[in-house]
Amino acid sequence: MKAGYLFPEVARRVREFCEADPEAAKRLIRCGIGDVTEPLPRAAIDAMKRAIEELAHRETFRGYGPEHGYEFLRSAIAQHDYRDRNIDIADDEIFVSDGSKCDCGYVLDILGDQNKVAVPDPVYPVYVDTNVMTGRSGPARKDGSYEGILYLPCTVENGFVPDPPAEHLIYLCFPNNPTGAVASREQLSRWVDYAREHEALLLFDAAYEAYISDPDVPHSIFEIPGARECAIELRSFSKNGGFTGVRCGFTVMPKSVLARTENGRRLPLHPLWQRRWSTKSNSVSYPVQRGAEALYSPEGRKEIRVLIKHYMGNAKTLRSAAVGVGLEVFGGINAPYIWVKTPNGLTSWQMFDRMLRELNVVITPGAGFGAQGEGYVRISAFNSRENAEEVAQRLQKL
Amino acid sequence: MKAGYLFPEVARRVREFCEADPEAAKRLIRCGIGDVTEPLPRAAIDAMKRAIEELAHRETFRGYGPEHGYEFLRSAIAQHDYRDRNIDIADDEIFVSDGSKCDCGYVLDILGDQNKVAVPDPVYPVYVDTNVMTGRSGPARKDGSYEGILYLPCTVENGFVPDPPAEHLIYLCFPNNPTGAVASREQLSRWVDYAREHEALLLFDAAYEAYISDPDVPHSIFEIPGARECAIELRSFSKNGGFTGVRCGFTVMPKSVLARTENGRRLPLHPLWQRRWSTKSNSVSYPVQRGAEALYSPEGRKEIRVLIKHYMGNAKTLRSAAVGVGLEVFGGINAPYIWVKTPNGLTSWQMFDRMLRELNVVITPGAGFGAQGEGYVRISAFNSRENAEEVAQRLQKL
Repeated sequence: MKAGYLFPEVARRVREFCEADPEAAKRLIRCGIGDVTEPLPRAAIDAMKRAIEELAHRETFRGYGPEHGYEFLRSAIAQHDYRDRNIDIADDEIFVSDGSKCDCGYVLDILGDQNKVAVPDPVYPVYVDTNVMTGRSGPARKDGSYEGILYLPCTVENGFVPDPPAEHLIYLCFPNNPTGAVASREQLSRWVDYAREHEALLLFDAAYEAYISDPDVPHSIFEIPGARECAIELRSFSKNGGFTGVRCGFTVMPKSVLARTENGRRLPLHPLWQRRWSTKSNSVSYPVQRGAEALYSPEGRKEIRVLIKHYMGNAKTLRSAAVGVGLEVFGGINAPYIWVKTPNGLTSWQMFDRMLRELNVVITPGAGFGAQGEGYVRISAFNSRENAEEVAQRLQKL
Repeated sequence: MKAGYLFPEVARRVREFCEADPEAAKRLIRCGIGDVTEPLPRAAIDAMKRAIEELAHRETFRGYGPEHGYEFLRSAIAQHDYRDRNIDIADDEIFVSDGSKCDCGYVLDILGDQNKVAVPDPVYPVYVDTNVMTGRSGPARKDGSYEGILYLPCTVENGFVPDPPAEHLIYLCFPNNPTGAVASREQLSRWVDYAREHEALLLFDAAYEAYISDPDVPHSIFEIPGARECAIELRSFSKNGGFTGVRCGFTVMPKSVLARTENGRRLPLHPLWQRRWSTKSNSVSYPVQRGAEALYSPEGRKEIRVLIKHYMGNAKTLRSAAVGVGLEVFGGINAPYIWVKTPNGLTSWQMFDRMLRELNVVITPGAGFGAQGEGYVRISAFNSRENAEEVAQRLQKL
């Protein structure tokens, strides 16, 4: 494998900069890694504390929980995120996990190594790296891409939404990390139709669905007819409830999703996924599951709306500032990421270094997300309002 | 894969019994699955609540933590469990996880599929099942064992401690689940010498080390000279701090452990393991890590001693009762499991059914742990004192 996972390399450069210039380090604002900054909803805090106190008394103590997640959480998810939106998902199609990043790797446990993989380019590096680690690729090329993996260019021309390829296992992420693009109902329908016709499997990462404000943009792949036959959805409480450090997410695995075995039989993936969890996990910490459940309470939902409004307010501020200084800007409307074309033909890393040195602002170089990310940088809206406004100010100097 | 993981099958039979006889169901006592019953140490409860409250305020909020675990926990583990016992383990050789069961599967992520696997028989089923799921075995045989995996018989004759085989990847678990056996310093030294001579890798599961009372029994494989070159240790907070539902454990991966690649090079596993965690995980919930840290505080350690004393008091009661009715009994002295020979040539499942129907006590049939477990049952000491004494009473009726 390539030595450098994107974010450790960003961290290394920032550390070097801070050691060399401690004064500038004090002014540093981080808009790099997509980590939340605002406190957790009080509803989740209180629920987790109550759950922990339960564990302090014999009468209410709980040991091993169900390996696929507690029924109270699976049903809250299926009801609020799906059935309330007229999407047909059963409680036992929800599998609670310790986060979407983890699920990206886990899902490969149940898929043969001979599957051909397609990923958007640019893309969340974990999709590629977990496949490389299981031997589903050839060697790395000079530009950081791997032989044996199909990269789907996401460009200005296609609005950062690629067309279907001829591969078996296809990763999609909308709202997108890093470009902030969303896919329309029509675009997603083409993917679902393609997948059904070619027996491909869609891994749909919807970690950022809470940031969608446009009423026409689908929140779930399962809003598309036929998706129950060809898609698995990944969701997370990291970016809505701020659970990046608390760790909870889930997958939706419909019982109707089939995959072809080496000898040509079509079998459902649901029993394999269920078995994977029974054998390899004891599910997620009980207090954490209570915290996630509380995000679906009326108070929890209200608090999430406040958080989303906060981060999207930052996005608006950053987007306007970037547009104001003449940069070409994408995303930041239905997603907490702003995807900025570098000016004057700068490479991604040149722009990264320049913003670090001149503005003391950390962003993420687009090239780290794939070859098509070269010439772009990602600015994250996860920050305090004060910091976002300060970054907007500093952008004037560009 | 075989359809039936042991514990789901036990659960199925118990459910059927309870539905058929609701009166007897009320008397049911579970000594089956190795799940703790006593409340968590107050030190851990208070630490987790404090950590959760930190997440409720912007000044103390934490998002993504270090992928290998927070330094505060890694150093507490390395200091208290290892260096205080004169075992040379560095903080960055500790990898915090969501439990030993999970680690059993994760560790296969960094090992080639062509490795030959050896497991004790009987054995914790997860060792075998995770290997079968990654394709490291042939088809299942009638007795439930798999072709292509080497089973090391653990019998009365060898005191349930097998001798080294000629395989690459060898699972050891002491104190043992299910037999309750412990391995002496001399026995473990033979394994380490063998592994170094034959370039084998030992996966040493020490989940039950806190139950060792005999001062001569090693708590860690790293007490054995040379183990730093050939062993990985798995530990858990499930059975000492009662974290079965809270989820936290760790692996010890010395930097000096080497493995041979397909083309014959000897490379350290530590960087691969580090990369596995960086790429596939965001570590364990922050409040949970604070709870685990608190188990190492003076109060936490005192509370753990009380818990161990409680469960081992149960073990003594159950062991005496079983011996008293003339059963042949193993384990239960340095481990919370009692391994009982079935009387009159009963099979494991016959004994299971008989204890369920006649005594209304759930135990675990030994055959579920492997072919050599046939003719034995495992009685778990994880229970309230009252229940343990009641089970001891009921054993009189056997």
